[in-house]
Amino acid sequence: MRTYRMTLAYDGTAYCGWQIQPGKSTVQETVELALRRITGQPVRAVASGRTDAGVHALGQVVSFRCDTRLKPEVLRRALDANTPEDIFIKRIETAPESFHAIRDAVSKQYRYLIQDGSQRDLFLRAYSWDIPHALDEGRMRRAAAVLVGRHDFRGFQAAGSPRKTSVRTVSRLDVKRPHYESSRPLAIEIEADGFLYNMVRNIVGSLVLVGQARQPPEWVAEVLAAADRRRAGPTAPAHGLALVEVRYRDE
Amino acid sequence: MRTYRMTLAYDGTAYCGWQIQPGKSTVQETVELALRRITGQPVRAVASGRTDAGVHALGQVVSFRCDTRLKPEVLRRALDANTPEDIFIKRIETAPESFHAIRDAVSKQYRYLIQDGSQRDLFLRAYSWDIPHALDEGRMRRAAAVLVGRHDFRGFQAAGSPRKTSVRTVSRLDVKRPHYESSRPLAIEIEADGFLYNMVRNIVGSLVLVGQARQPPEWVAEVLAAADRRRAGPTAPAHGLALVEVRYRDE
Repeated sequence: MRTYRMTLAYDGTAYCGWQIQPGKSTVQETVELALRRITGQPVRAVASGRTDAGVHALGQVVSFRCDTRLKPEVLRRALDANTPEDIFIKRIETAPESFHAIRDAVSKQYRYLIQDGSQRDLFLRAYSWDIPHALDEGRMRRAAAVLVGRHDFRGFQAAGSPRKTSVRTVSRLDVKRPHYESSRPLAIEIEADGFLYNMVRNIVGSLVLVGQARQPPEWVAEVLAAADRRRAGPTAPAHGLALVEVRYRDE
Repeated sequence: MRTYRMTLAYDGTAYCGWQIQPGKSTVQETVELALRRITGQPVRAVASGRTDAGVHALGQVVSFRCDTRLKPEVLRRALDANTPEDIFIKRIETAPESFHAIRDAVSKQYRYLIQDGSQRDLFLRAYSWDIPHALDEGRMRRAAAVLVGRHDFRGFQAAGSPRKTSVRTVSRLDVKRPHYESSRPLAIEIEADGFLYNMVRNIVGSLVLVGQARQPPEWVAEVLAAADRRRAGPTAPAHGLALVEVRYRDE
């Protein structure tokens, strides 16, 4: 038995998220069935975190244990060939026996894409939130700065999702306009040591209210202080969100 | 009656190309029906050129004539709102009465995207040709250089598609690797004063044979000289191709 560390990308459009749910198509089930087909063993795939229905991943990390003579790169190719084209197995490597994709994760980075105003790249439409009028990036950046650091993010957590603590450290929250093909969508990049349920999408929904001048940048500090979900902005739609990268202790 | 010049982008995946065909869903029909809904008149939309089934456009140019009091920007927004989300109306402006999108076009630029090797961006998979092994760009560039200039491109024309002349001037044929999201796909960009039927896709198919080392770069000169379609490479699939830009005399 060996422990493996796998990095994969997926288009979340067709899946009910990562985690196995009876009667629903999930990324975990798809990957585990393919691993079973290849290795002949039942394999449990543990991802760094669940992604919700419709959320994408550019660099999800998964740990699994199995007994195979296949070299990691051969296993990668076999697994990639045995999964549909909306899942791409980027890398498989052997890991220390104790490696665990959830427990050992140190930080995660998400990215949310928005196409605002009249410029848009049609090829991105399944992967971005479409907002008709241009957003004011300067205002959004000022609001984002308020959220960086160690805070209680209870106000940005989905109602009814208790965790031991809702304190998290956001190490980076950037609002930028990367050059794409033929447009410049707005990208909100956020890195933290952990995320509460719907935290990224609630932060994005709140920043958008600020970008639309429906709330002042300082309002975000009030939401944080009030620690009440009902004060925050709407939850941004799932299809604009992607898990970009997971960092581990050893890096 | 006024003449308008419209620039639009479309995702060709769901359409049987630009041109109206009975019983099939086409971009032209979709745009003309929307123009009729908005203006109350039958409007004929003339595109710079047909795009085939599955081919995309980032900047197709269309001329049409109609009688409306709507200002061009209002017309643009109305038309964009009245077409499905895989069609994006980028610009509408009034044009000289005689403007004609086919006749007045001076050059066109196409781009073909290929994802080769083991890096790939899942978000591009509907817009790029997937080739398992990495292509040798240097070889492809040497072959591409042979095609630049004024030549008889009969060897790269679909069989059975007679035109008055098969001589065209290719002003640019670049093989590059632009930075995308998380991958660097191969982009073949070609600009010419006109294109024969399937010419871009046949050139791409031939360059790929060279990139796979199945033909030497000089072989492309033989295909050109032989002027025989059977000598060229396979026709590259439609979904990797996009019409990027059309230039007109006045620019």
